[in-house]
Parts: sequence; C-alpha cells; structure tokens
Amino acid sequence: MRSKIKEILRFGIVGTTIEAKGWIRTKRVSKQVIFLSINDGSCQQNLQVVMAPTLLSEALLNQLSTGASIAVLGRLVASKGQNQSVELEGSQLTLLGIAPAYPLQPKAHSLEFLRTWVHLRFRTNTFGAVFRIRHAVSYAIHHFFHEHGFFYLHTPIITAADAEGAGALFRVTSLDAEGPARNPDGRVDFREDFFKKPTNLTVSGQLAAEAAAMGLGAVYTFGPTFRAENSNTPRHLAEFWMVEPEVAFNTLDDNIALVEELLKFLLNYVLNNCQEELAWLQKRALSSTNEKCVKAQMPLLERLAFVLAQPFVQITYTEAVDILMEARPNKNGTFVYPVTGWGIDLQSEHERYLVEDHFKSPVVVTNYPRAIKAFYMRQNDDGRTVAAMDVLFPGVGEMVGGSQREERLDYLQQAMQRGNLQVEDINWYFKATFFA
Amino acid sequence: MRSKIKEILRFGIVGTTIEAKGWIRTKRVSKQVIFLSINDGSCQQNLQVVMAPTLLSEALLNQLSTGASIAVLGRLVASKGQNQSVELEGSQLTLLGIAPAYPLQPKAHSLEFLRTWVHLRFRTNTFGAVFRIRHAVSYAIHHFFHEHGFFYLHTPIITAADAEGAGALFRVTSLDAEGPARNPDGRVDFREDFFKKPTNLTVSGQLAAEAAAMGLGAVYTFGPTFRAENSNTPRHLAEFWMVEPEVAFNTLDDNIALVEELLKFLLNYVLNNCQEELAWLQKRALSSTNEKCVKAQMPLLERLAFVLAQPFVQITYTEAVDILMEARPNKNGTFVYPVTGWGIDLQSEHERYLVEDHFKSPVVVTNYPRAIKAFYMRQNDDGRTVAAMDVLFPGVGEMVGGSQREERLDYLQQAMQRGNLQVEDINWYFKATFFA
Repeated sequence: MRSKIKEILRFGIVGTTIEAKGWIRTKRVSKQVIFLSINDGSCQQNLQVVMAPTLLSEALLNQLSTGASIAVLGRLVASKGQNQSVELEGSQLTLLGIAPAYPLQPKAHSLEFLRTWVHLRFRTNTFGAVFRIRHAVSYAIHHFFHEHGFFYLHTPIITAADAEGAGALFRVTSLDAEGPARNPDGRVDFREDFFKKPTNLTVSGQLAAEAAAMGLGAVYTFGPTFRAENSNTPRHLAEFWMVEPEVAFNTLDDNIALVEELLKFLLNYVLNNCQEELAWLQKRALSSTNEKCVKAQMPLLERLAFVLAQPFVQITYTEAVDILMEARPNKNGTFVYPVTGWGIDLQSEHERYLVEDHFKSPVVVTNYPRAIKAFYMRQNDDGRTVAAMDVLFPGVGEMVGGSQREERLDYLQQAMQRGNLQVEDINWYFKATFFA
Repeated sequence: MRSKIKEILRFGIVGTTIEAKGWIRTKRVSKQVIFLSINDGSCQQNLQVVMAPTLLSEALLNQLSTGASIAVLGRLVASKGQNQSVELEGSQLTLLGIAPAYPLQPKAHSLEFLRTWVHLRFRTNTFGAVFRIRHAVSYAIHHFFHEHGFFYLHTPIITAADAEGAGALFRVTSLDAEGPARNPDGRVDFREDFFKKPTNLTVSGQLAAEAAAMGLGAVYTFGPTFRAENSNTPRHLAEFWMVEPEVAFNTLDDNIALVEELLKFLLNYVLNNCQEELAWLQKRALSSTNEKCVKAQMPLLERLAFVLAQPFVQITYTEAVDILMEARPNKNGTFVYPVTGWGIDLQSEHERYLVEDHFKSPVVVTNYPRAIKAFYMRQNDDGRTVAAMDVLFPGVGEMVGGSQREERLDYLQQAMQRGNLQVEDINWYFKATFFA
C-alpha cells in the first residue's frame, strides 16, 4: 500500500515500513550511501531516500536519473537534515519508468523555457506550487458559496447571445471551413450550422445566472469564459475561468460585503493551506533577476497578510477622481493617461495609485458614471451614476467588478437606448424580470 | 435582515420577528385571512404567509399574483398545516416586482412546455429540484476529490488536439465567416486564425490530465466537453460537464475501487441532503402519464438506495459475453443487436440486461477486447484484451468508463499503428511519458 509523500512527511512514524512512489528530482552517490530525492506531486517537499549502494546493481543505479519514476519500500528513520522530519531508508527499489532524455535538469528554469515543455511543467517546483494553489483557491470558492447557500450553476458555453458586448467573440461552428453551405445570395447559410444559427463561445454567464437567481435565490458560476481579442498583456487571456455570483434581492452594499468576505476567506484559506507553495513562489520572485516580472513592493506572503488584515476602504468614483486630480503623478505628468475630470474611465495606473500609494489598502470604488458602465446596472437617484463597484487590489488593479442590477423596466429600456442596444437581442432577459 | 426560507423552516423560532423575501406561488383570499405561499429558491418547500385583509389595499392585493416578488415582515407562529412547522404572520408587505403576464400558472407543466420558458424554469418545483440536486452532486464531487488528495485541473477548452477521436468536433475560429483569409491555392489560411492553426472545442481533457498527473500525482477535471454529433437521444448532448480523474501509479483495481467509493459517496450525499427534491421528482415520475419518460422498475428513492446498498458485481467482458449469449432475449431474438460472440461491442440493451435482469446490481465489466477500446489502455498479458472497465447502472447503462493507461512505449506504438493513429499528432503525449 503506497503512502503519499505529503502524509509521510506529516504523519510518518519512525520505525514503520512504508512504500513511496515518485519521480526522482536529484541523486547523490558516495561510496557509503546513495541519496535520492523524490517527489510525487502531493506536496511541495521531496522525500529523501537513503540506500546502501550494495542494494542496487550498477546498471540500475545508472538508470536512476532525474525524471525517472520509482517505487521504494523501506523503513522510516529520523532525518539528520533540516528540511524534513523523516527520511526513507530504502530496502527495495523498483524502477517504474526511465527518463534517459529528460529535458528538465534540477536547476532554475525561466518561464519562457518551461513554456516549451508544457506537459512537463507540472513536475517543477514552480508549476507544482501554482497548480496546487489554484486547486486550493478553486476548492475554497466552492466551499464558500456552498456554505453561504448558493447553488453552483453551469451556464451555456456555446451561445447565440452577446448582450453585454464584453469583448471579441470566438465563433463556434460545425460548417465546413472550406465550403460552408450558402444561400442563393452567396452568403453563408447558418441554418445548416449545428444550432441552425450563428453561435459563439460565451464571454460571460451573467445574464443566464441572473435568470437562475430569480428562481433559485442565489447562484454562482465558475466556468471557462472566452475573449478573441488579439492582445498580449498579463491581464488578457483568450480562455480563463471566472466566478459570477448572482443574488436575488441584494443591494450594492450586500454585494460589497459578500465580495470582501469571499476574498478574505480565499486569502485566509491559501495562507493556511499552501504555506510551502507560497514560500517557494516568494523565494522564486525574490531571486528572479533575469525575468521581466513585476516586482511587488512587498514580498508575496507579507502582501497577502497585509490585504487580509486591512478593512477594504470604500470610496465613490467621484471621490476617487478628486484624489487622482490632486495626485502628484497626475500633476507632474507621470500618468500615461492624465486624469482630466469627472467622467473618465479609470486606468490600471490610476487604480494602483489609489491602492498602493494613497490608501495603502484594498479599495472598493462605487457609483461610477453610467456612461462608462453596463446597461444592466441600477441607476442612482442622482441620474448620472449607477450602483456599480470595482474592488482594487495591490499589484493587480481590478480584482472584482459588480453592481446592483436594474429592476425598473423604464430605466432599463432607457439605458439600452443610450447604448444603442436592441431589446430584441435580449428579449428573454426582459421577460425574465418583467414578463414584458 | 432577510432570512432564507430554508432556514426559517428548519430553525425558525415561534414568536420571533423576521423578514422573508420570495416569489408568490399561490394566493388564497377569504374574508378573514389572506394566504400567500412564497418560495425563494433556497429549498423545495414554500413558506406560508398569513395576513389580515385589512393590512393590504385592494390595489396591492390585486397585484399579488403568481410570480410577483414580495418582502414580508412578521412574526413566526406555529403552523396548523401538516407540511410545515411554522408560518409567517405578516404585519408588513412590500411589493418588489409585479408579474401581470406571468406564464407559469401553479399547475403541472410538461417538460416540453417549460422548454419554451427556459429562463423561468428555475422557478418551478421540478427545475428547482433538478438544479439543487445538480449543485449537491457537483459540490460532493469537489469535496470527495479534495479529501482524497486530488488537485482540480482546468484543461484547455479550445484545443488543436483530437487524439482520442471521441466524436465530431466543433470548430472554433476568429476568421470571418463570409470571407476568411485564403492561401494562393484558394484554401482557408488558418495562419490568420486566432491561434494560427485550426482549433476545436475539446472532446476530453484526459490526455492533458494524464500529463498533469505525471507531475501532481492525482488530478481530476470537472468541466464542459463538446460533441458536434447531430443525435437526438437522451444519452447525447452537444455540451455537457464531465469528470475525469487521473492518478499516477494506479492499477485497474485501484481505479475500480476509486469509482465505487466515489459513486457511493455521491449517492449517499444526495440521499442525505436532497430528500425533499428527490421526493418531489419521485412523485412527478410516478404521476407522469402523458410524457414519454422511461419508467423505471423501481421508484427513484428506492432505486438510489438499492444501488447504494449493493456491492458492485465485477465480471470480465468474456464472462459478460458468455452470459449474454445464453440470455433469453438473445435466444428469442428480443435484442435489437444479437450477441453473436466474443469481440462484439456491448450495446445499451446488453448492459441493462446484465444490470437489471441478470445481476440486479451495478456491474463493473473489465478487460474488454483491445480492438474495441482506445489505444492508450494497457494491454493485458493475454495479448487480446486491455485493462479497461465500464461501470453499468440500472436505468442508465454506462455510468463510468476507464482504464489503466499503457506505460510501455512499444505496446503503445503498436496500438497506435493498429488504430492508424499518427505519432506526430500526439507527440507531446509520448514525450510526457517516454521523452522519446
């Protein structure tokens, strides 16, 4: 019965006999002893295997290279090293898979290099840490919403709707690429396509989730979303996973409270459950010299703890613009996009100034001008702002965007007219709320 | 502070003042009292609201129709009805949203009718039950794998790979539908497409998950998967969510044990957490007369408890064929697809005969002929079968398919040659395992 290395290092009892399996990270050979460091992906740490050279043939020893897969039976002994409590005194070693041409030698690799070995990245410390943290965050998201009485909803990935106009669309088709069916006028005949009309990949499950929330009360999506924008920035992806909660009866204040509780729960969960992974990533970031990575002002662990400890500052968009107008980088021309007055869209540099320089805290900006926000956001009584919010984080900028939804038919229709949106395009959205 | 109806009905204390919000299901008016039945989606049950007619104007009372959204403040009192412990004696009612043309009156609707109100289905008992159960199963899946040390993996949705040949593909493109870029020879120039080559929606994350498992040890996917097959059966969907676990070092027996534990955990979870929803669906199925639904031999709850109580029977494909050859429906010609001998692919009618008639238990069939299974399944020593398994359930047929993966390069290459698969097409899959 195989034991996982995570369990061996946490709960292993000196003197017991166990079997471990994993991939060799490093091998050191002396006359008296062979040291093998193996990892099985269950945690960041490796298990140290110690064997007498007499137990292995020279042919076998030569095959024990980085990347090779082995099973080791042996006895747990107290470790003399600093980094682990126990090590495995191997009595029997089985070679499960050889790796004669393994390309990832045990040293630091650039992300650019690892990108060329996309299927082997999972075996590195950095990607192991990233994917274990991604799992922890994903699990914590499901746990949080479940405990708060939300229902997980799978909204359609293939859709004919693009109500929000959130971005460029990928088209999905079963028509022949070279010779699609055509109408007499020569245009493509989408009646012959799979869904009898043009379809695309979803840019947001929000509107579908709103309809579900109007029956189930509180739902969240957590699924893939797509943008066909040809943009190479760290903030743009063609395919990414997004979380979209929708709650019936919630006000903007309810939503802000929900977001702050969610984000702090996730930070706390990761800080408690991924200490070794975060420590590795911090070490990597601090030692990184030849990579064009954004150096944060604080080391990673400190930055996460800092965000967790702060109550989020809440200001209105109008207050944010007042602050930015008076900000030094605005006055001395350091901002690439000068803040000229009320009505401008906030850029990433403005958001980060508010968070990192002015407030030194996560910031929730509320009540944006209606002209720069989506049609479905609830209009405030001032007639020019909407009940929207953006949550801004250090080193990131916008982390969450949201709003209270407009529930008044006449306001919604006016907002759509201003945005040149046709009611017919999202007729079902109207019907869901208004039966109009 | 609003209370959810689920919490009110479970934990509400008689005499306390609370606020509930929800959508009106039914209204009954007499001279002495008004009864409103409201639902907020948090659970299957409604909350009964009782109000004195003097508290509501006639205009307001007329607007309180099925589908309207209200907030009620009041005092919890012990209920005289059988179906709930408490009811709400309303002292203040606020109309949040009217529903003058609400199309779903409080009566039984066919699934065909509800299909025409896709965005309102969430407000019905049947779809409320289905989506709450779907949430429960989804959450239980994440919980199970997390507790077993698996990492949740998001494999690519847009992909250029189709190694498995699992089905017809949807093409994903950013090229103009009417006039795509073309090469001098007149063919579509996919270098101008978003990813510089033809891409499609994934039919399976398996191969990517295998690569991840070779680093992280144990991973699972739970994401959308696509088939462009133009097939209208209850077993075929163009878009569906699938779970794919991959575990390094696992044998076929390990995989069978994992699947049985998973399925029983999920059944147990749903039986414990969705009693009202299951009871509703059972009642609906038993009373369904005018729908072409498959009538199961046992009522729903009984059937689920039955599956949970049975140890799964495990037989080889060869044993399965022997049983089917001798089966009465095979001898008297009732099978649409006669079982003629070893080597045939098992059809749904054969699978259901094994489960529902012969064994009266879930059945795991192992060691299928290699000719009818995928190239990546591990060949057995008999030279003609592979270490594959299908888990068969009553009323469903195949519930899970899986295998131990082939780890021997020469066997894998031979399997691909037999299947006319080109090594170049999944070169990375080879590299992940063999660095070849």
